Formats: sequence, C-alpha cells, structure tokens
Amino acid sequence: MKNLLKLSDCSIEYINKLLDKSELCKIGKYDNSCINKIVVNCFFEPSTRTHYSFQVAQEKLGCKVINFYPHDSSILKGETFYDSIMVFDSYSPDALVIRSNENEYYKQLLNKVHCPIINAGDGTKDHPTQSLLDLLTIRQEYGKFDGLKIAIVGDIKHSRVAHTNIEVMKRLNMDTYISGPSEFKDESYKYIDFNTALSEMDIIMLLRVQHERHSTQMKLSKKEYHEKYGLTKERVALMKKHSIIMHPAPFNRGVEIADDVVECEKSRIFKQMTNGMYVRMAVMHEMIGE
Amino acid sequence: MKNLLKLSDCSIEYINKLLDKSELCKIGKYDNSCINKIVVNCFFEPSTRTHYSFQVAQEKLGCKVINFYPHDSSILKGETFYDSIMVFDSYSPDALVIRSNENEYYKQLLNKVHCPIINAGDGTKDHPTQSLLDLLTIRQEYGKFDGLKIAIVGDIKHSRVAHTNIEVMKRLNMDTYISGPSEFKDESYKYIDFNTALSEMDIIMLLRVQHERHSTQMKLSKKEYHEKYGLTKERVALMKKHSIIMHPAPFNRGVEIADDVVECEKSRIFKQMTNGMYVRMAVMHEMIGE
Amino acid sequence: MKNLLKLSDCSIEYINKLLDKSELCKIGKYDNSCINKIVVNCFFEPSTRTHYSFQVAQEKLGCKVINFYPHDSSILKGETFYDSIMVFDSYSPDALVIRSNENEYYKQLLNKVHCPIINAGDGTKDHPTQSLLDLLTIRQEYGKFDGLKIAIVGDIKHSRVAHTNIEVMKRLNMDTYISGPSEFKDESYKYIDFNTALSEMDIIMLLRVQHERHSTQMKLSKKEYHEKYGLTKERVALMKKHSIIMHPAPFNRGVEIADDVVECEKSRIFKQMTNGMYVRMAVMHEMIGE
Repeated sequence: MKNLLKLSDCSIEYINKLLDKSELCKIGKYDNSCINKIVVNCFFEPSTRTHYSFQVAQEKLGCKVINFYPHDSSILKGETFYDSIMVFDSYSPDALVIRSNENEYYKQLLNKVHCPIINAGDGTKDHPTQSLLDLLTIRQEYGKFDGLKIAIVGDIKHSRVAHTNIEVMKRLNMDTYISGPSEFKDESYKYIDFNTALSEMDIIMLLRVQHERHSTQMKLSKKEYHEKYGLTKERVALMKKHSIIMHPAPFNRGVEIADDVVECEKSRIFKQMTNGMYVRMAVMHEMIGE
Repeated sequence: MKNLLKLSDCSIEYINKLLDKSELCKIGKYDNSCINKIVVNCFFEPSTRTHYSFQVAQEKLGCKVINFYPHDSSILKGETFYDSIMVFDSYSPDALVIRSNENEYYKQLLNKVHCPIINAGDGTKDHPTQSLLDLLTIRQEYGKFDGLKIAIVGDIKHSRVAHTNIEVMKRLNMDTYISGPSEFKDESYKYIDFNTALSEMDIIMLLRVQHERHSTQMKLSKKEYHEKYGLTKERVALMKKHSIIMHPAPFNRGVEIADDVVECEKSRIFKQMTNGMYVRMAVMHEMIGE
Repeated sequence: MKNLLKLSDCSIEYINKLLDKSELCKIGKYDNSCINKIVVNCFFEPSTRTHYSFQVAQEKLGCKVINFYPHDSSILKGETFYDSIMVFDSYSPDALVIRSNENEYYKQLLNKVHCPIINAGDGTKDHPTQSLLDLLTIRQEYGKFDGLKIAIVGDIKHSRVAHTNIEVMKRLNMDTYISGPSEFKDESYKYIDFNTALSEMDIIMLLRVQHERHSTQMKLSKKEYHEKYGLTKERVALMKKHSIIMHPAPFNRGVEIADDVVECEKSRIFKQMTNGMYVRMAVMHEMIGE
C-alpha cells in the first residue's frame, strides 16, 4: 500500500519523481486522469491552502471529492478520530487525505485503512506536501538544491513545516540554518543571526508567529517581534541579489513580514501556493492513478 | 411521486427489491447511472454515516451533489425549515435527502415539493435507510429473515432506528425483543433480560447510550451502564456460535460496547456502514434512475 | 477581463442580453457548456438562495465547484479577506464568486485577481445577480419594463437589493417608489404611502425587516410593523388585478408578510428563486463560457 506520511520515508529519487510529475501537472498532462476515483478530505484542523489546494487538485484530476466537516458530524456526539476515519474507510475510497493536530495520528490507522493515506499535516511533526511545494519552488528558482543556503526564521520547535523541510534539505545538501528569537534555538540545528542571514542566504523562509501560543513563552509583543525579526523593506534591501523570500502562510502582515514585502519582487509566497496545487495533483496521482 | 418516508409504507416485496438492487450496486452495476441528476442533501442534525454515505452513493451514481449546511445559511437570519427546503425545491432538483429532529417533518412538504423526498431520519420516528442497511447485513449473514431472533438493547423509546427496525422485522417474521435498562421497557414490545438475550439471540443490536439525554431520566452512570449492559468480551463469549453484533453507530466505547468488541469477529458494525452506502445507492437510483 | 461587480456598470443592452441568455438556460441550452471550468464560491456572509443557486447553476453548467467555508479556514488564524482570496487566485480558477459585508470589497482585488469576479453581494451596496433575477421575473410577467410602477417597501437604506434595483429600474423607465416606515425615507427617492402603493403599483417588492438591526433605530415591534406595513391578505385584496408581490427573501412570516400571502396567487417569491438559478447560469456562462 502506498502512503505519504512523512517525507523522511521518501528517497531523494522518489522526491524528484514527484517534483517532475508536479511539473507535468502544471502543463495539464494529468488533467482528468483519475476519473471515478473517490477521495475523502478529512481536516480536523482549520486550513485554507492545504485543504483547498487538495480539493482543486483532485477536481483537476477528475476525482469525485468528498469533504468531511467534523463540526457537522457525529464528532459532536463524541465519536472519536479513529472511528470517524473508519467510517470513511468502510466506503472503500481510493484515498484519504487527513490533517489532525495529533502527532503521528496515522500510526493507529495503518493496517486498518484499506487505501492510501496522504498526510496533510500531523501536529508538530510532518507536513510532506508543504515541503514538496517548497522544494518545487526552490528548484524552479535555482534549478538545483545542492549548496543552496536557507535560513528558516521563527518558531522552529512547533513548526511541522520546519521539521519536514530541515530533514529533507539536509539530504539534498542544502546548507540549512534556523534563525529568529533565541528562545526558539534548537541544539540539533545550526543557528544564524537574523541580520547575517539576510545578507548570506539564498532563501529566507519565514514562519508564522503563532501569537496565541507564543504569548506565554515569548516575551515579545507583535510590535517587538516585527522590529527585531520582521522582514521589512529595509531588511529585504540587505538580501543577496537573486535571493528569494518564502513563507508557508498564513502570514501575519506587520509581524513576521511587512505589508509591502508580501508581494514584493523577491517574494515567492503566492507562487508557493500555486505549486502546492501541482504538487498535490502529483501526489494524488502517484497514490491513486494507474 | 416516489418518496421514501418510512419503511412501514413499503411492502416486503418492495423492500426485497431494494435489497436486491443494493447487491447490484455493490458489484458496480449502477455506477454512473444517474449522470446529470441533481440531488440536495439537507441535514439539519449532525451526521457522519448517513450524510457521507449518501454523498458517496450519489457520487458513485454520477449525480451532481449539493450539500446544504444550515449553519452557513439564512437559517441564521431566522429562515424556517419549510422555507429553506422550498428554496431548494425552487431549483427543481431530482431528489431531496432530508434529516431533521422534527417528527414527520415531511408532512408539511408533501404536495409542495416537486421531487422525491428521501427521509434520512426524522426526530424519534423513522430512519428507513438505516433499517434497510440493517436488513441487508442480516440477509447477507443468514440468507433469510424468517425466524431469526434479535434483541435491540438500549433506549428504544428515543431511537428511530429501533422503531423502524422493530416494525419491519415483525413483518419479516423475525422474533424481535427489546432489552437493557428496565426504565426503557415499552409495553408494546417483548422485553428480554440482557443475559438471557446473549445466549439465545442470533443478533444483538446495541443502541447508542445518549448520555446527554439519559442523565436526567436514567440513574446509571456510564460506568454502571457498562457493568450492567455493556457488551464486553466476557459477554460476547456467552453469545451463540453464529450470532452477530450490530450497532447503528456512533458507538460509545466503554459504555454500551467494550473497546475490544467493536472490531471483534462477531461484529458487523463496519460492514453495516459499507452496506449503508450500497443501500443508499439503491434508494437513490430507485427514486431518480430511469 | 470581464467582471460583474455592479449593475450600474452594465448597459441596458448588456442586461437584456443576460436576461435573454437566462431564458435559454431555462430551456437547457447551456447545460454542461462549461465542462472543466473551475469556479470558487467565497461567501463571507451566510446565504441560502444566492450561494446555493450559484452552486446549482455551476453544476448544471458542468463546472468543477469549490466552496470556501471561512469558518473552517485560516481566517480563524487571522488571515485577512484579501489574503484568503489571493490563495484561491493562486490556483488559477476560471471565476470567483464573492460575497462580503464590506462595501466594494472588490476594489482591492481588481488588477490583482486573474479571473472574473462575480459580486454576490457587497455590504449595503450592490447585489447585481439579485437585481437581474428580479428583472427576469418582471419581464416574464409583463413582457416589458417601460412604465411599470413598483414600490419597494422597507429599509431601503441598508438594502443592497433596493439600491441596485432602483438604479437599474430608473434606467429601464420604470416608475420607482419607496415605501414603508417614514424613518427609512431617503430624499433621493420618491416616497409613496403604503396604502396608496397597494392600489396603484404593478409590483409590490417587500424587503426583509432586519429586526436585529432595526430594534435600535426603529420604534416598531414586529407586531406593530406587521400591523402598519405587513402585507396581509386584506391588503393583497386592495392590489391591482394583475399586480404581483416580490421579496428577495429570506422573509419574516408575520412581520413584513403574512403567512398566507407568501404562496398566494400574486406572489412570485419562489419564482424569483427559480429565476435566480437561471440568471446565475447566464452570468457564469457569460464570464467563463467560450
């Protein structure tokens, strides 16, 4: 059974195959290639980009798409996550796309569920399709990964995007740093001062400040964060000539990124979203296509 | 105009026709047989199994599926149930699938609505497609209904599943009992002691303990219910050799059913769900197919 | 780039073209004419008629339909309206249908979004497709607009339906009045006494009493409103022979309209809804069809 649970399970060869397929999706090669396939999206956490790019991807592939909305379901009567997923499994879908705030939620489902599981994010652990879209965006920009310098800025500890990216980027021989508030330092990763990062990196990848969570552990207000680590126009001016800005979004305008930087020339934020759709088409096709 | 409002309106011949058609749906005979038909699902109560199995069934039939979500609608501005349904009727759909907590909600719609109404549950009254899937599961197991002994265990009074099943099972010459807490005894039905039922029945059908409701009328805590009436591994051991366990779900693990019984060899709970999809395909096709 | 933002941008010729196309939609001329087109419905306010008639219209056209539900999305993490829309834009849909409570929300999106925007209602400003369906209903009834007398009754000031209608109806040489509580009088429109209106108008168009809002600015209780301005059977009897009753709905039975008037012979309320679906098919096809 094919699944896509975490990117660390995937060889570089397989990852490159998925990226190649994403490019083919971009030129329409796989449109309507999965007619009559039934896919179910089960999002137990709110999502815009991931949920809807999966939906659009599935529609482009010609799938029959079912969206499970937990707040309208028997979850309200106390039905568990496992039992809810097993309901859908009992309908023999061709794939289940699942997001949950529980780390490695999929472990309880393996050898139970009869179709591929595509992990759309589990707790603070993995987010493989996000990482694939980041890689696709980088490859489109630089044509390679080897030797590229990237700093991921912000709350690494709680970010599944950061964890997933750092692991695979190391395997791809990218020179990977973390940056931002020192309380987020993590001994397992190389730390770089934010201002140094600006002038040396090929890629500055910002993370969302999850202020609801940070307020307790971080002494910085939104304004202070912006002053110290916010990517402003002035700081963008310090960046290398061909360097780019990435962000998994949603972003906080005026906190980790200034309003006028979101759509600046160096920003690839919306391009990442577009790539998200193609990557998810590729992943879906890899799981359920002939 | 065809409708499916309550099973007591349906002859045994018609019910068997629907079950036969369900088996054909299972082998793909009706896939994409309802292309361009527009169906609207109007669930005014939360639902997982019923709502989503209807959706999957409709998708398999090739229908164009509209899902009405009341909490996003003009219901918030005070629009009534009747007026909301009439909105959808004004779009000339091919069928309306409706669930409401109001008993016989459909009476106000008859001779108003221009398409078949499929009752997906009304208050404490009827749940015809649930009953059909139960019957399909039993027929697959035993190849007959005549003479089979079944005990339905729990809060019969408030269960539309129980009401619908008991009526049709009697017509099918099944030997039908109710069991569980004595406060749920109902003079119109034969009552059997739970432990006796275990060793004598061909089918033990558990109902969900609706604890939010029971707390006022029942003196039993969840723990006490489980001790007295919970289907545990020990109690399963007392059951007849070929007997089976059914439950309309959602179930409360550790209350009416023990954790390790849900997926035990005798359990047909997930098979019921699968059958739900085929039964709903059959019903939909019966209503809107050529 | 084609958009439909407000009806005042549209020539009478263009409006008639859309109404003619709506009639063709009614007879099935455009069914499945937009296969493989991807449309996204973004409703930031609750809606039944507008949202679902767009959905049904899009399904009839054969579109692939994505429905954005803000309360399940990153809006919960503070993502803005603009940024949410830009997510969908990044998927290159063929059209975006948007409703927001912000007046002229679309101004920030023009020259940003790469596909047609169809305004499904903005704040208290415009509601072009509602107006089109009203016009279609009137044209079906009278075969013309010129010289028809209409009174729009209720809270004109806060009604995007009223604003949009009055502007276009004047251009169509309709004799347009407002009526209802004097506190809603607006110097820019001709006011007519409600009882006079009843006997003189060809069309009485009621507006919903938004009591949640009115309670502060209006001294009238629901009961008092009904007594003074409610369209009762007695008042219907005063209306001209061939005159009709319209209401954009949702309506408050027993407030601006009596229970037994909603579906009376003169009422075109449900016909308006049906026309809403055809008008939205026509608009969608105009925007995205070949």
